[in-house]
This record gives sequence, structure tokens and C-alpha cells, in this order.
Amino acid sequence: MRPTGSADATATLLQMTQAEVLSEIRNDLLLSSSLWANIALAGLSILLFVYMGRNVSTPRSRLIWSATLLIPLISLASYLGLVSGLTVGVIELPPGHALAGEAVLSQWGRYLTWTLSTPMILLALGLLADVEVGSLFTVVAADIAMCVTGLAAALVTSSYLFRWAFYGISSAFFLVVLYALIAEWPDAAADAGTGEIFGTLRTLTVVMWLGYPIVWAIGVEGLALVESVGLTSWGYSALDILAKYVFAFLLLQWVAANESTVAARTTGATPTDD
Amino acid sequence: MRPTGSADATATLLQMTQAEVLSEIRNDLLLSSSLWANIALAGLSILLFVYMGRNVSTPRSRLIWSATLLIPLISLASYLGLVSGLTVGVIELPPGHALAGEAVLSQWGRYLTWTLSTPMILLALGLLADVEVGSLFTVVAADIAMCVTGLAAALVTSSYLFRWAFYGISSAFFLVVLYALIAEWPDAAADAGTGEIFGTLRTLTVVMWLGYPIVWAIGVEGLALVESVGLTSWGYSALDILAKYVFAFLLLQWVAANESTVAARTTGATPTDD
Amino acid sequence: MRPTGSADATATLLQMTQAEVLSEIRNDLLLSSSLWANIALAGLSILLFVYMGRNVSTPRSRLIWSATLLIPLISLASYLGLVSGLTVGVIELPPGHALAGEAVLSQWGRYLTWTLSTPMILLALGLLADVEVGSLFTVVAADIAMCVTGLAAALVTSSYLFRWAFYGISSAFFLVVLYALIAEWPDAAADAGTGEIFGTLRTLTVVMWLGYPIVWAIGVEGLALVESVGLTSWGYSALDILAKYVFAFLLLQWVAANESTVAARTTGATPTDD
Repeated sequence: MRPTGSADATATLLQMTQAEVLSEIRNDLLLSSSLWANIALAGLSILLFVYMGRNVSTPRSRLIWSATLLIPLISLASYLGLVSGLTVGVIELPPGHALAGEAVLSQWGRYLTWTLSTPMILLALGLLADVEVGSLFTVVAADIAMCVTGLAAALVTSSYLFRWAFYGISSAFFLVVLYALIAEWPDAAADAGTGEIFGTLRTLTVVMWLGYPIVWAIGVEGLALVESVGLTSWGYSALDILAKYVFAFLLLQWVAANESTVAARTTGATPTDD
Repeated sequence: MRPTGSADATATLLQMTQAEVLSEIRNDLLLSSSLWANIALAGLSILLFVYMGRNVSTPRSRLIWSATLLIPLISLASYLGLVSGLTVGVIELPPGHALAGEAVLSQWGRYLTWTLSTPMILLALGLLADVEVGSLFTVVAADIAMCVTGLAAALVTSSYLFRWAFYGISSAFFLVVLYALIAEWPDAAADAGTGEIFGTLRTLTVVMWLGYPIVWAIGVEGLALVESVGLTSWGYSALDILAKYVFAFLLLQWVAANESTVAARTTGATPTDD
Repeated sequence: MRPTGSADATATLLQMTQAEVLSEIRNDLLLSSSLWANIALAGLSILLFVYMGRNVSTPRSRLIWSATLLIPLISLASYLGLVSGLTVGVIELPPGHALAGEAVLSQWGRYLTWTLSTPMILLALGLLADVEVGSLFTVVAADIAMCVTGLAAALVTSSYLFRWAFYGISSAFFLVVLYALIAEWPDAAADAGTGEIFGTLRTLTVVMWLGYPIVWAIGVEGLALVESVGLTSWGYSALDILAKYVFAFLLLQWVAANESTVAARTTGATPTDD
């Protein structure tokens, strides 16, 4: 039960202070650019979206606008957490992994943010498609479980096999989300008269979200075909740019141009008499 | 403010690496069997439930089926976390406790999972009984608070008394949940025409859930009348088997046999005109 | 990548055991009184509210009563976490901060609780004003993001600037919440016939919630104009007393006196035919 020398080393690494992680990040241009690029874009998106929302006046449109504004705000907070070293740690990868025994930076804060930001994206899609509250709740639960098990996959260091076991479970939750997005919500969107914009955003979301497990699998956390922490980080950052800011921009543009359609709509969660 | 020698020892124990915890678990047959048994049953349940759902076609039945499928999926993820050592730690019990000063394995991941899995069970019951969204929200909040304070009870090591104080608070939240399950939701279920199956599942849930605080109280975390970590773990594992897989099986069986009843229903959260 | 001597010291400080934090708190009368005062008041509130609810009989009033009862219960659990040392840590403030290099107690558990308790307050207000589920969901998401980024602001030790960056983001989320409380929900409350009590509670909430970022800014976590951990803690504790127990008391008193108004109401989430 006593830690061995090697375990002591690991424990020490895992206790790197934020200041040390911060200087690690600063010394890796590829890595730090992948973070600051998103901070800049998130900031610009917030300013742009506030500007785009200045003339949105109907309650329902303002609601979708508020929900959408949260997407770049949460992203900004997430990347600040990464760039400050607060939500980045060092893990020692287990035997079997291509980088076994090496200590690599783990951006665990990304998973934490996805737990909060991806439900907002599903909420925006669900409101647009006017789906039932029960359906929204179930999909959001599967989505949160997907993010939490993804975090587990990233943090397991005791066994290489368990990393992929968590990857498999996380993918199973993803299938539940995909099933709803592809097979169930389009009908609701068609009934709601928002089929076209829902289709566009749904396709963007499905395609981009498929990218995350692929980056995981080929990046440093998975098979390490790409051994660079900075490149792996850019993989996630590029997906975030498309899945978050472009998604939000398209949605807001549509809402601004179709206020009357939106105003005529009620959610599945709203009584039909108001 | 400087740690004493004894505190250093504790700190070291708490920093056991996952690999060390993993080998601890592997060397305890009773403990590891309590975890692997659930992994096997969760896996079988998922396969069985996917098979049972192949002919479920109405939207509302498919929704309940999706929500129910999440129960064994979350359970599988939870037990993988325990068996890999990711969500197991070592705590030194405080003076006053029967095992005071001893370092014991704490399966804190169980509480984390309950925070996610028990709301899904309440969601399934609430959808079945067609309760108001506000009621569902309140009961889920009390349920989450119950799990978080249970986690606190398990992790407090500074004082024996505080462990039981958290146990008491957690039980108070449990009473709020019990009150809703016993006094409020049955009426809604009767109105919804699902009184019989709701009654069965409600009784199963209430009886099983009463088991968890009892296991806590007599197991290593509480009075330590049972001093074996493995036996305590089997206590929770057996309850999980009944409260999760059997619960989900009964619910799905009923949904498959009563699709027309389910289809005619709307949730409290659905407009009445569609 | 190797920790320096100073980093080792920090790491050691951050690993203070709960027992050590507990004795730190016990030796600071101002600090411990700020915690015990809330434990006593939360306990009294629970007893009082259970008593006030004895004659509340309509389902909707009982629902608001249950939701409100959770507020002091969660608060009690939160302060137990602080006073037991479970949710208190030691951080070393970064260069630039008035207390740079000093190790101070950080009550990170407060942020954790706010993440759970403030959504309950918004839920109570939202149910009262009969707002749309989508609006409630969005405001709760912004509120949770506000609390999580507040936690980040409190825990960042790598850079003084990043502390205030998180403070800024957290404030942006707060603006989203304020916007809903001030500009959107009052109309819904007026329609629901609960405009008066909603107005009172809304004003209490807005004014008190503005106090938290002010305490942060002038207390030890921010500019440290007040350098006492105990006084800063009393700042939060006093705000909690007004924003939680007084809030809940006013709400329950109104519900008890206006059961018929409440009973006639449906939430935005309820079908209109029952």
C-alpha cells in the first residue's frame, strides 16, 4: 500500500502548480495559439451577437437569442480556464499507450465545459424544433453522461484498456444523442415550421460532434498517431470554432430574419392558449 | 499551519495513484466481484433492453425507452470508474469512528453516479405518472442534494460528528423525495391511467432506496458493524441490481405491452392539442 | 517541469488535511461565528417552514412550499461543509494581489453550493411568475455558469489578471440573469396575477445578489481592501441570511395567505386543461 518511487514521481507531477502549467503552456506556441485563438473569437462573437440582437423584440426570439449568447460566453470561460492553467493537469499515461510512462498535459477543463455548453446547444436545437420537454431532458442527460465518461476516458491512468472502455461507453451515450437528432427531432421541427434551419444546424452539429471522438482517438489521449499536444488541442479548437461560433451565428441570423415565424411558435413546454 | 507527521502520512495515502488503488481492488476478491458482477449485469441489461425496444414505435414509448436505457449505461460507466480505481480513494477515518486512524478505500464514485442516475429513475417515474414539470424539477433537486450531501458524509474526515450531521441532512432531502413518491405522484399516476405499473415501480424504488442509508449506517463508512469494505460494497451492488436493472426491466416490459396506453398519454409538459 | 522549492511549499499547503483546516477555522472566532450563525438560522428556518407548511393543502402550493424548503436545507449542508473543513482549502495568491504569496483560506464550497441553491431561488421565482420552461432553463444555465466562473475566479492562482478575467465573465453571466429578472419575468408575473409578491422577492434577490460580487471585489479574494478572511466570510453570510432565509420566509408567508390565487394558476409547463 506504500507508494513506490515511481508513484511518488507521478503524484508530484499531478501536483504541478497552476503557475508551472501556465509556463508550460506559454512555452508551447502551437498549444497557446490554439487557446488564444478561441478566446479572441469567443470575444468577437459575443460583441457581434449582442449587436445582432439589438432589434430582436419578440419574447420568444429574445429567449433563443439569450440561450445562444451563452454559447460563446461559456466557451470564453472555458478557454480562460485552460490558458490560465486552472483546468489543465499533467497525467502519466499507462502501459500499452504509445506514450506510456510519459507525463503529458491533459486539458481536462474541456470536458467540464462540454458538460455545460453542449446542453445549451441541444437546448437551442430543441427549442427550435419545439420538442417535448421529456425528450429534451433525456437527450441532455445522455449528453452530460457522454461528457462525463469522456472526462473519465481522459483521466484514467491505471490501465490502457479502461481508457478505451470509457471511450466506448461515451460513444454509446453519443449514439443516444445522435438517434434523437437524426431520427426524432426532425419530425418535430417540420411540424414547427422550422425544418430548414433545424436541418442546417442539425447537420453542422452532427458532423462537427463526430469530429471530437476522432480527434480523441488519433490524438495524444488515444492512439497518439498525432503525438503533439498542441496539434491535438488545435483539433478540438477548430471543431469548437465551427460547432459553437458558426452554429450560433447561423442560428441568430435566422432568428433575426424570421422573427414572425418564431413569434408564432410555442414550445412543447408552453400552453397553447397564450 | 504546518502539516504534522501524521498528516503527511494521510496526505500521502490520499494521493495513492490509480494504479495502486487498482491493485488493492484486484487483491480483494469480495470487493472486485461486487464491481464486476454489476459490470456484467449492466452490459447484459443494455443488450436485452436494446432487443426489447426493437418493436417500440410510438414516439412517447420510444422516449421512455431511451430514458430507461440510460440507467444501465450510466451504471456501467460508474462501475468502470470504480474498478479502474479512477473514482476510488483512500480516507483516514476520524477519532470516534470504529476504524479511527485506519486508512480505508472510499468508493466516492458511487455518489457521483447516483447524482446522475437517480434523477433518471425519478424522470422515468415522473413521465410515467405524468407529473407537473415543476414537481419533477423540485424532486430532482432534492435528490441531487441528497446525493451530494451523502458524498460529503463519506468524505468528511475531520470529525466523526460531522459525518453523521451530513448523514442527517442527506436523510432530510430523502424525506422530500419520499414525500413526493408516496403522497403526491400516485394521484397523478392514477389520473394518467398508469397507477398500477407506477405503484409497482414506486414501491420497488422506495424499498430499495431505503436500503442505501442502512448499508451506509452499518457498513465501514458509518458504525462499521460490518467492517469489510468488500461486504459493504456488495450491499450497495445488490441494491443497485434491484433498483436499477430490475426496475428498468419491469418498466420496459410494461411499455412494450402497453404502447397504446402510453401513446394516448401526454406529459404534464406537453400541450394538450397534439 | 520540476516543481521548485516554493511550488513544493504551495503544494503542501494545498494538501492541508481537513483536520488542520478545521482547527484553523476553530481558532478564528470571527470566521467560525460567520459559519455557525448560518447553521443555526438554517436549522431554525427549516423548523419554522415545516410548521408554516402544515396547513398548505393544494398541490401547487405544496409544490412551491417543497421547493422553498430546499433553500435552507441546501444552505445548512453548505455551511456544514465549510465548518467541517471539507469544502475549505488554502490557496497562495498570485503576484499582483495585495496578499501575494500569502496562503489564505479559500471557502470554495460556497461556490459549489450557490451552483445548486441559486437555481432553486430562480425556480421559485419562475414558478411564481409562471414563465416559459425555455426561459427558466436559459436563466438557470446562465446562473450555473455564473457560479462556476466565480469558483474559477476564486481558485486561479497562476495570475492576478486571470482572476479578474473570470470575475468579468461571471459578471457577464450575471447580466443575463439580471436582464431576465428585471426586463422579462415581471410581465409574466403580472399576467399570472402574482406581480406584487414577485416584485418584492425579485427586488430582494436583485439587491442581495449584487452584494456578492461587491464582497468578492473588496474582500480577500479580490482587491483585499478588507484583508480579514473572517470579515469577508461575514459579508457572504449576511447576504445569505437575507437572500435565502428572509426570501424563503416571505415567499412561504405569501403562499400560505394566497392559496386560492396559487391554486388557480398553472405553470407555463402545465397543460391548460387541468
